Amino acid sequence: MPLRLDARDADFNERFRAFLGAKREASADVETAVRGIIADVQARGDEALIALTAKFDRVDLSTFGLRVGDAEIDAAMALCDPEALAALKLARDRIEAYHLRQKPKDDCFTDALGVELGTRWTAIEAVGLYVPGGTAAYPSSVLMNAVPAKVAGCERLVMVVPTPDGKLSPLVLAAAKIAGVDEIYRIGGAQAVAALAYGTKTIKPVAKIVGPGNAYVAAAKRVVFGQVGIDMIAGPSEVLIIADKTGNPDWIAADLLAQAEHDVSAQSILITDDAALAASVEKAVESQLKTLPRASTASQSWRDFGAVIMVGKLDDAIPLVDRLAPEHLEIAAEDPERFVSAIRNAGAIFIGAHTPEAIGDYVAGSNHVLPTARSARFSSGLGVLDFMKRTSLLKCGPDQLRALGPAAIALGKAEGLDAHARSVAIRLNLPGS
Amino acid sequence: MPLRLDARDADFNERFRAFLGAKREASADVETAVRGIIADVQARGDEALIALTAKFDRVDLSTFGLRVGDAEIDAAMALCDPEALAALKLARDRIEAYHLRQKPKDDCFTDALGVELGTRWTAIEAVGLYVPGGTAAYPSSVLMNAVPAKVAGCERLVMVVPTPDGKLSPLVLAAAKIAGVDEIYRIGGAQAVAALAYGTKTIKPVAKIVGPGNAYVAAAKRVVFGQVGIDMIAGPSEVLIIADKTGNPDWIAADLLAQAEHDVSAQSILITDDAALAASVEKAVESQLKTLPRASTASQSWRDFGAVIMVGKLDDAIPLVDRLAPEHLEIAAEDPERFVSAIRNAGAIFIGAHTPEAIGDYVAGSNHVLPTARSARFSSGLGVLDFMKRTSLLKCGPDQLRALGPAAIALGKAEGLDAHARSVAIRLNLPGS
Repeated sequence: MPLRLDARDADFNERFRAFLGAKREASADVETAVRGIIADVQARGDEALIALTAKFDRVDLSTFGLRVGDAEIDAAMALCDPEALAALKLARDRIEAYHLRQKPKDDCFTDALGVELGTRWTAIEAVGLYVPGGTAAYPSSVLMNAVPAKVAGCERLVMVVPTPDGKLSPLVLAAAKIAGVDEIYRIGGAQAVAALAYGTKTIKPVAKIVGPGNAYVAAAKRVVFGQVGIDMIAGPSEVLIIADKTGNPDWIAADLLAQAEHDVSAQSILITDDAALAASVEKAVESQLKTLPRASTASQSWRDFGAVIMVGKLDDAIPLVDRLAPEHLEIAAEDPERFVSAIRNAGAIFIGAHTPEAIGDYVAGSNHVLPTARSARFSSGLGVLDFMKRTSLLKCGPDQLRALGPAAIALGKAEGLDAHARSVAIRLNLPGS
Repeated sequence: MPLRLDARDADFNERFRAFLGAKREASADVETAVRGIIADVQARGDEALIALTAKFDRVDLSTFGLRVGDAEIDAAMALCDPEALAALKLARDRIEAYHLRQKPKDDCFTDALGVELGTRWTAIEAVGLYVPGGTAAYPSSVLMNAVPAKVAGCERLVMVVPTPDGKLSPLVLAAAKIAGVDEIYRIGGAQAVAALAYGTKTIKPVAKIVGPGNAYVAAAKRVVFGQVGIDMIAGPSEVLIIADKTGNPDWIAADLLAQAEHDVSAQSILITDDAALAASVEKAVESQLKTLPRASTASQSWRDFGAVIMVGKLDDAIPLVDRLAPEHLEIAAEDPERFVSAIRNAGAIFIGAHTPEAIGDYVAGSNHVLPTARSARFSSGLGVLDFMKRTSLLKCGPDQLRALGPAAIALGKAEGLDAHARSVAIRLNLPGS
């Protein structure tokens, strides 16, 4: 049974705060182990990768080779269901079209003093993409990470994916090929993160690492952060649905379960002003669970982390949504745009009854890598800017330096940085130089 | 004596690689202490802040109050040198004008299928700004962090600044006022980071923390990352100057020293194709050190981390610069624009002999918070986007869902996520719903 809250109850604020603060993931203390693995890869390179992969994935890379070859990728593609391949290609094209609009423009201008100022964007040269193995290997996630990197102009996109017991999803390889990944290595865990960050004889280092992973991967990304860039540390996924009496209980139940089936730590929340709808949705969830292959995961997630929150009027949902800052927000209510403009914190908003989140997961074109665990308060989904960086440009001539120099000298002296002041004064033949 | 390298030497590659990998900061292992401090602030709130500030800063906040009041700020402003205040205001206006150009535009469009897609930018509601105390309290840095936050539209900008032995720079308070900071608290260290991240009775929590600090502050930011957003972890500052025979040795020496005076861990590097210039610059550095108030810091930085790198022709500098990815790059050579377009990795580029880096530090308008320690390979200087986040918007009607649905269903099934497939199929009355 999911948590039931009612905003009209006297103890609501307290219970809502507890709900906000509840942890959905045990944060395993894996940092010591991870630091050991990283040090091993730094010291022994490929040799460490081979040993650690034999240990954790039960695969002998000295036989298979670290790198997945072109022939193997082509063979995998031939194994894929043509319908799934066509869907991946449609998804790739739409993701590409959407992300092309995110490409930033350089901005160079001359101000009133004649100072030339500029902002220039360039792609990160080499990027690593972590792809989990086993059941969490999602070809759609390969596209969502790889396509924006290629749109940004990254020249070397390196994928790592563990192959536990030698297993590697053909559709994951197909997605990598379709997305334009340049190199693929069959390694995972902290050792793969270390190889990407520090390089080995076989694997040249990259400058940034993106992609989801388990607790070891997340801890390793935290450790190598600084040496390379990393994306956000993804937590378990969540959906929040705002619905009024016009909502279809079966559709809403299906969407809550689509979230819940991801992971026992996933979270599905319904906020409504209609008690009858809430009851119908809960009933529909139970009914749909009966025929769901991943019912065990979904029912555990719904029971442990699901929530149904009643509000007196639907507008009362708005501040609650902003505090929850959901990764995914669906609005199944009349005049949904009203809520879109009123709500500030959400990774992605799915507007109206005919926009199930799964469309955004796969084929809408927008990115499905979105901020989890309330981080939509301060961060954004993955996009082209995550694969680029800005350089600022500045050019003064003698006149501009004369105009701005005295203020720079005053501030340098005020901060006790006389060499700063001097570097300006010396060019202007001013005292203090 | 700085390191001297010559790209024409047989062992250059090896020595350059060692130079790249050399650490300039002892990374003190302060994490255990920091975790204890954070837990204390989470448990005891204001009481912990008062106790820790008494211990570390020797200030009794139960007398002074945590918050710096308006009267205190006004009194501080009255103490400031009018010339420095005017320079701060000029800097603020120019920083504001520059950063206004960075404000992103929302992008909403309808694609060929009729799918409505959008990207919406909103400001982060509440941001914390860490300002170091003592000698590292730079009013210019207050402006560089605070102005972009205000340009972004952040409603609550909270500054924390330690006041060791009760000392607080009047010009830092003036900069905060000029920049529009909303609240100021006299706390520092890991305890201030914890208070910003988790809140106390007096200090409401923020969603993101920016600003430089010592090893404790950096470690605390790493620990609270996820709970709140953080900016980059800043390392010691660096400048790289590319110069040919047209370079003015005195000016170049002044710029190398302006970097070196920051910190004994700062780094100043000259790359030139002219041996005579290199010798003149080294001589000018020694001469200018004699009259520099911070000569002790600057000479230690220059001796320990400074470098003069000779190249056969100046174009050979380009790949070296990209590997060093300097925070600041000055080009004092003929046709400097040629290097600007060829170089990929640099935080900021200062073009031509009349653009000393100090102009960018203070009054150019561009941001002086820039990626250090080679992180310009993958990250950017501080800007307006750091104080905003993107929400993606998606709206399908029945026709669009019919067009895109089958591909989403195919991918959901291929990934073993049947509830995903069902959430689409159920709206289309398709099998599997």
